[in-house]
Amino acid sequence: MEKRTLVDKAANELMQLIREHGYGPGEKLPNEYELSSQLGVSRNTVREAVRTLASRNVLYIRQGAGTFISEKKGVADDPLGFSFMDDRRKLVEDLMQIRCIIEPQIAALAAQNATPQDIAVLSSLCDEIEVLIVNRQDFTQKDIDFHVQLATCSQNIVISNLIPLICEGIRVFSSTVLEQEFEQTAKSHREILEAVGERRATDAQQAMLFHLLYNRNRFIQEKDL
Amino acid sequence: MEKRTLVDKAANELMQLIREHGYGPGEKLPNEYELSSQLGVSRNTVREAVRTLASRNVLYIRQGAGTFISEKKGVADDPLGFSFMDDRRKLVEDLMQIRCIIEPQIAALAAQNATPQDIAVLSSLCDEIEVLIVNRQDFTQKDIDFHVQLATCSQNIVISNLIPLICEGIRVFSSTVLEQEFEQTAKSHREILEAVGERRATDAQQAMLFHLLYNRNRFIQEKDL
Repeated sequence: MEKRTLVDKAANELMQLIREHGYGPGEKLPNEYELSSQLGVSRNTVREAVRTLASRNVLYIRQGAGTFISEKKGVADDPLGFSFMDDRRKLVEDLMQIRCIIEPQIAALAAQNATPQDIAVLSSLCDEIEVLIVNRQDFTQKDIDFHVQLATCSQNIVISNLIPLICEGIRVFSSTVLEQEFEQTAKSHREILEAVGERRATDAQQAMLFHLLYNRNRFIQEKDL
Repeated sequence: MEKRTLVDKAANELMQLIREHGYGPGEKLPNEYELSSQLGVSRNTVREAVRTLASRNVLYIRQGAGTFISEKKGVADDPLGFSFMDDRRKLVEDLMQIRCIIEPQIAALAAQNATPQDIAVLSSLCDEIEVLIVNRQDFTQKDIDFHVQLATCSQNIVISNLIPLICEGIRVFSSTVLEQEFEQTAKSHREILEAVGERRATDAQQAMLFHLLYNRNRFIQEKDL
């Protein structure tokens, strides 16, 4: 107990040091010896504190090279414990329900807040997905990127970090439905992009809601087969 | 790299073993020796796999007593990396924005899906908060419990695991506003409870939206002082 507390305390202080110093993703931390003297704790405690922050995806340890700031910005893998839920069907249904609540609003915020650069990225993704669709190739990853980019467009930092949840939703969904929907996906994405680009928040919101409900209904119909 | 993969693989298998066996929160896992033979890996690998799952709040290690299933159901501490965000004001604003998107819908789902037992718990919490308010005592924790219980009432497992996000929102908000709002909080909570109990989904939704916007406006006004 005592030891745990010491490590937790050191981890919090290390976290503060990272924030104050303004280390960015990919930057290298000072070595164990320096951290030990800066935090005023033993090298063993530093090592465990680093391990704690690595398990929280704040840091990344590269054996032999040192400790770096993770690109994952402290967002946990599987942050909401999906792997703990054994009813996969209910998980998919509940994910679709929460996506129908959050994502139309994200699309509306994107139309309101996206920068021209944000929209250019969204537009490229839309083009790339269409090429994949024309060639009847798997577009799951680009689909995720499109929805993630919309979240970025919202400029809401909490929404940006909810991205893993959205991604997991798409991944779970893709592995559950029997086949990918090509034409309707291309059409919906294009509609969302155009509404965001032209700052039509309500149209973006409704195009997203249609996109999600269309897929939810496909899922329900397959279930009934 | 090789070692990491071995531990990750063992952690996934241990996870599967936990799911298949149906271990519940608080239950004790077999000891290292037994797990080592069940998973077919060394005791060292078992130890590290257990540590990995403990860091993800799936397991809980009690020194000398053994390894137990955590009550946190695999939901990470600070799952969305809030401690990594240094602009506290923007964090509060963005949290309020996402709460205004999600929580009114949670209230509507609660009105639709809550069991009589769920509503009884919600009702007790409402009573307890009113006692604290009459005595002008801090009610932050009970306030969190009330909003968490509403999420439970929704019967959506993803929403239930989004609870930490909501809690953090309330905690960050409480530490930011100058003083607690007593009368209006009691009134709003009572309205939400009654609407949920009488299955009035739209009323529950709108009472929650008013409750959140009222607090958001207080926050904005204090900022302008």
